[in-house]
Amino acid sequence: MNDLATWQEDKLPEVEKQIEDFIKTHTANEQLQESMLYSINAGGKRIRPLLLLATVAAFGKNITKQAYQVAAALEMVHTYSLIHDDLPAMDDDYLRRGQATNHVVFGEALAILAGDALLTSSFELVAEIKLEATSKNRLLHLLAKSAGASGMIAGQVRDIQSEQEQLSFSELTALHQKKTGALIRFAVVGGGILADQSERVLSQLDNFASYLGLAFQIRDDLLDELATTEKMGKKTQKDSAAGKNTYPALLGVEQAKAALTTQLAQARKILANLSFNDFDPTLLQEMIQLFELERGSQ
Amino acid sequence: MNDLATWQEDKLPEVEKQIEDFIKTHTANEQLQESMLYSINAGGKRIRPLLLLATVAAFGKNITKQAYQVAAALEMVHTYSLIHDDLPAMDDDYLRRGQATNHVVFGEALAILAGDALLTSSFELVAEIKLEATSKNRLLHLLAKSAGASGMIAGQVRDIQSEQEQLSFSELTALHQKKTGALIRFAVVGGGILADQSERVLSQLDNFASYLGLAFQIRDDLLDELATTEKMGKKTQKDSAAGKNTYPALLGVEQAKAALTTQLAQARKILANLSFNDFDPTLLQEMIQLFELERGSQ
Repeated sequence: MNDLATWQEDKLPEVEKQIEDFIKTHTANEQLQESMLYSINAGGKRIRPLLLLATVAAFGKNITKQAYQVAAALEMVHTYSLIHDDLPAMDDDYLRRGQATNHVVFGEALAILAGDALLTSSFELVAEIKLEATSKNRLLHLLAKSAGASGMIAGQVRDIQSEQEQLSFSELTALHQKKTGALIRFAVVGGGILADQSERVLSQLDNFASYLGLAFQIRDDLLDELATTEKMGKKTQKDSAAGKNTYPALLGVEQAKAALTTQLAQARKILANLSFNDFDPTLLQEMIQLFELERGSQ
Repeated sequence: MNDLATWQEDKLPEVEKQIEDFIKTHTANEQLQESMLYSINAGGKRIRPLLLLATVAAFGKNITKQAYQVAAALEMVHTYSLIHDDLPAMDDDYLRRGQATNHVVFGEALAILAGDALLTSSFELVAEIKLEATSKNRLLHLLAKSAGASGMIAGQVRDIQSEQEQLSFSELTALHQKKTGALIRFAVVGGGILADQSERVLSQLDNFASYLGLAFQIRDDLLDELATTEKMGKKTQKDSAAGKNTYPALLGVEQAKAALTTQLAQARKILANLSFNDFDPTLLQEMIQLFELERGSQ
């Protein structure tokens, strides 16, 4: 349990298997399936499903097939958002994780539809999980809310609107609490729901995840600012060129690093204060290290 | 109950109110909200929510707030599909129902996101309905399945793939059973679920709706072939110009009209054979008339 790398290597293949199995058995068009799987298999650290599974494990619960399936659905929602964000009408990115983006390979029409299909399939997948109906509805509702018009999508709209506009620290933070934060909060709170935790615990988990989500975005901005295209596997320093608001642009690199450190310290503090029966914060504490600047790209 | 026009006028405002209320209370960005409501309020006959409500009513059930909410979610899914279908990368339509399409007014980025938001919000809405958890889960699952990678989206992908390719009658029918048929089947079967019907009844309703769905598409193709731009409020004869497969192009206008008549006769026949306690087919029989060629555009 203490070795995060080993734990990841053990858990991630099952998440990926659940995604692949679902797409292969629930997609009635070969090219659509190929396009969906292309972006799913384009890699990434799978930070959201890992956070969800680590939260379940922190409460001393076994990671059931049901937990893997919710983690799989979450990664499908994240992947849909990347496909749509990369479109020419949005960020117009041709590289992600060192590979051509979906629309470059499959064309814009299919990329839009593969994104739509991953989003829809995520709800179809959660609806099919063998889980008590009330918990399942709760997970479905939280997933839709997190991904939707008051969550991730609202953040993405705000991000586009605010190009060429100077946001304050609190405005930028509000934007990213939605754009990046909402799905990271779903990961942790969803894990808590799967572990049958009380409202009080879920609310503390949500608070923990808010700091993590913000840390994730500050780190992502810093990596974009500091790294070279080769290392990141995507075009970098593109955000500042596009007039996008980023933490380093707003605060300077050093202050942005300090803000990242602050967010992570807050997250650690909340975690240390969570003391329930059978709760073991070790794995989540280790996961926080993944949000530090020096741990390499996501 | 016998006067369909009066019945519609009575029910539709409540469907529209449920959609507006949900979007206004669940969208955390003003421009996103405006873009979503623009397409919702662009009109249309609301054939899907009407079919759902008429099915509930046919079983002698009151139309509850819950039924209006499911009907609202269904119309939101339909509206998302129109916004994405109209995009430049897809059908590249600048007019729909006599109004500029969403991306023409709000730009492509916001149109993509408004579509994503309507889709996600539809699941969020169903998840919030005060309904017994198992029925709610069933509705959520069927909605996702109907809209998703083995339903509507698979049909849309096939439609794009088959441009410049000659489909047979059965291939074209398989395409439209997904593209148009899946949501129409959801309307009728979803109404049956809301009316607490058995699997056997739901299966007969599904069969009835399959004929209706196909009739809808044949009629739509015929209207496109026969009508002028002015009357339809959108560009017409565009399908054949784009090399799209349509029933009139495949069968000729007269044979396509005959095929439409056949589908509707089949639908009527199934309906006449449905005899359950408290089941009154009158309203659904009247609704079939909306699928006839001479009843004007949808």
